[in-house]
Amino acid sequence: MDPDAVARAFVEHYYCTFDTNRAALGGLYQDNSMLSFEVAKMQSTAAISEKLAGLPFQQCEHNISTIDCQPSGPVGGMLVFVSGSLQLSGEQHTLKFSQMFHLIPTAQGSFYMLNDIFRLNYA
Amino acid sequence: MDPDAVARAFVEHYYCTFDTNRAALGGLYQDNSMLSFEVAKMQSTAAISEKLAGLPFQQCEHNISTIDCQPSGPVGGMLVFVSGSLQLSGEQHTLKFSQMFHLIPTAQGSFYMLNDIFRLNYA
Repeated sequence: MDPDAVARAFVEHYYCTFDTNRAALGGLYQDNSMLSFEVAKMQSTAAISEKLAGLPFQQCEHNISTIDCQPSGPVGGMLVFVSGSLQLSGEQHTLKFSQMFHLIPTAQGSFYMLNDIFRLNYA
Repeated sequence: MDPDAVARAFVEHYYCTFDTNRAALGGLYQDNSMLSFEVAKMQSTAAISEKLAGLPFQQCEHNISTIDCQPSGPVGGMLVFVSGSLQLSGEQHTLKFSQMFHLIPTAQGSFYMLNDIFRLNYA
């Protein structure tokens, strides 16, 4: 399958899950996974799930502007670089963001996120 | 050495070289290196050097806003995520950008860039 299509499918799944069932995001990480969310850094499924669950907004909608993908070196690994905007419930303006994922194949034929770095793009 | 300090030193070296001696950037890539620069994609030191040399501006100045760093999996590898702004000579406004690098250790004790993805942040 085309790597760009795989990356796009994963990214769409990630943001759809984020926007509709954030508690399920933990399934996309493993215990060696790392998340940098703005200045916060954490590692492990539990710590990442706790961080995402505790973000100070309940409803949001991600809109993707660009997705770039490259093989990362480890067999089947992919680096995915996303830009987009984030609409928080009750807020008039959207927030621009950039995010990168390092996807590693699982034994089950899917991917998990080894690396996840998120930054808002301040104007 | 602290990985964040290594990442910061590399990134500062990269942008300083970009802004003062762009032709020397080729030394930071190897033949398996990949560059995505906006929608353009290329691989190899020669192709990347040609792309960077041919960018439609001569003088520029990068200013770094944030640097985030995580180990990438392969021994000694690092993912570095940068946001900043780019001032082109003769232009009044700066351009915001985000960029990610995947750094791989070399036998000589330095790093090369296996992956490089650059995107302007359109407002």
